[in-house]
Amino acid sequence: MTPERLRALVGDVFMRAGMVEANARTVADVLVWADLRGMGSHGVMRVPRYVEWMKRGDLNGQPLIKTTESGATITLDADRAAGPVAMVRAAELAAAKARETGIALVLVRSTTHTGAIGYYTQLGARAGMAMIAITASVPNMAYHGARAAGVSTAPLSIAVPGEDEPLALDMGSGVISIGKLARARRKGETLAAGMALDAQGNPTTDPKTASIPLPLGGPKGSGLALLIECLSSLLAGNPILAEALEGTPKGRHHYQNALVIAIDVARFLPLAEFKTQVKRLIRNIKALPANGELLVPGERGHRHAQRTKDIKLAPSVLEELTALAKSLGVEVPA
Amino acid sequence: MTPERLRALVGDVFMRAGMVEANARTVADVLVWADLRGMGSHGVMRVPRYVEWMKRGDLNGQPLIKTTESGATITLDADRAAGPVAMVRAAELAAAKARETGIALVLVRSTTHTGAIGYYTQLGARAGMAMIAITASVPNMAYHGARAAGVSTAPLSIAVPGEDEPLALDMGSGVISIGKLARARRKGETLAAGMALDAQGNPTTDPKTASIPLPLGGPKGSGLALLIECLSSLLAGNPILAEALEGTPKGRHHYQNALVIAIDVARFLPLAEFKTQVKRLIRNIKALPANGELLVPGERGHRHAQRTKDIKLAPSVLEELTALAKSLGVEVPA
Repeated sequence: MTPERLRALVGDVFMRAGMVEANARTVADVLVWADLRGMGSHGVMRVPRYVEWMKRGDLNGQPLIKTTESGATITLDADRAAGPVAMVRAAELAAAKARETGIALVLVRSTTHTGAIGYYTQLGARAGMAMIAITASVPNMAYHGARAAGVSTAPLSIAVPGEDEPLALDMGSGVISIGKLARARRKGETLAAGMALDAQGNPTTDPKTASIPLPLGGPKGSGLALLIECLSSLLAGNPILAEALEGTPKGRHHYQNALVIAIDVARFLPLAEFKTQVKRLIRNIKALPANGELLVPGERGHRHAQRTKDIKLAPSVLEELTALAKSLGVEVPA
Repeated sequence: MTPERLRALVGDVFMRAGMVEANARTVADVLVWADLRGMGSHGVMRVPRYVEWMKRGDLNGQPLIKTTESGATITLDADRAAGPVAMVRAAELAAAKARETGIALVLVRSTTHTGAIGYYTQLGARAGMAMIAITASVPNMAYHGARAAGVSTAPLSIAVPGEDEPLALDMGSGVISIGKLARARRKGETLAAGMALDAQGNPTTDPKTASIPLPLGGPKGSGLALLIECLSSLLAGNPILAEALEGTPKGRHHYQNALVIAIDVARFLPLAEFKTQVKRLIRNIKALPANGELLVPGERGHRHAQRTKDIKLAPSVLEELTALAKSLGVEVPA
């Protein structure tokens, strides 16, 4: 399906499910962006889950987002808005505020699955900002040394302006993502050692039982995930991990928090000069001796998007999306 | 040697080498702090190197540090001050500024080896700040896929206030630190696979030839290191990697850049409440099923410091330090 058609389809699905149009279009755009960049795990395969959250009341299709400004900081109370809606707003606000103050922080409280967070940092980077974004979610990754999930695969994204595309890192804090574990399960591919635990907390390479990713670099990855919870959820007064681990009623709902920081590059040196130095740095990296081609952060995704005229969804994803669309009375293009 | 005596000795050495007293005491304090916390690789074993840099003019014992404020940001031109001098100042300035603006950034240009950067984030955390610090250095770590060093083992530290001690992460972006590689070499300990390359760019487990750490999680670690260079060195208009990789005259000198961000917790919720939530989170983590005791970031170092009444330096470190002290006319305690 062409990206345009897929965007329209997904947006229509969300609207029929009760989302206001502007929000539906934003969410569709962010999900299709992930598919375009080859990150299917953060793409439209998430649509059914998002709709389910809407039905349960965890995701609010008509949120009243409130922002409170204080100094160079903004607290964005997302009112359970879809992650992409809250995060696009947060990135735009952070960039605008940083233009006044040099650096700005937007703390996002009570949103839902934030999707591929590189979208938001790249959005800021294209506006001349150096951007940092982190998001906190439920315990789905092993804490280093534990036999159970204790922290989330909390992602970190950093993007800076580049001459053509932003230089954009987007990494989870686990050795393997939940999405890749699921793919290995579907395809029956044995995992490398040190990737995951089974539900009982034992190390395994069996894709059928592997369910808990191990943290990147042991204490580094789980420490990073823990601090990401502190910097977003605890600062927002909206803990996720403790609620889930204690099994409170709140802890059984889906919600996320996030933090976005924008730094106005032009406050420190002319933006063009910065971009020239980024280009110089990339040139030096690419000239390093290597057996194959060396890529810089964000490059693989960007190339994937450049050459993708047609998004090929996995048959099961397409089937599920089609069935959902039909159930909501949305016409599906042939 | 007691920490007090070691601090005095090291401070005296730096003073005799030409450092102003206040700076000498600060550097001694930061180095001894690392030894106290069991991070000898960032401790007083570095003293001879620091003195060598002073002789070469790379480290300025009498720097004129200049700061330029703009919005919520401060550029600190360190004038080749010792890393600890510039970084303590940066952390203090960031915390003070964040008290006015909610979030503040201090960009540190042209300092030297920054030491154990957890010192600076913990300093801010004790003052009620959530702190982030990163530092950029020379290419000493493999870029993912390359057969040579292309980025540095750029460290990231995040610390937040806790009820007793700060929760404090301090991680490098490599799977193994340069210090640990050196220790393995000294002790002749075979490395695990996937840790390092030799000087020719071949993977090796031989401690005699292993010299280039591999990045944490492949593209994640080297991507993080690359973005850390952008956020600190390129923003400061003082590139390190490109100069070194191109072999320019400047690239043969030792210098570092850094970025410190402070976030005033009390701007978002009462500090006591935040600390209570950090404590609750730690309690939940420690209650996870595990085969052994689970530690939280910063805990191992803090415990080490608590129980260390006497710092036992490696014989070679003590010898080198003693010889250096004597050569400068500093009396060494028996």
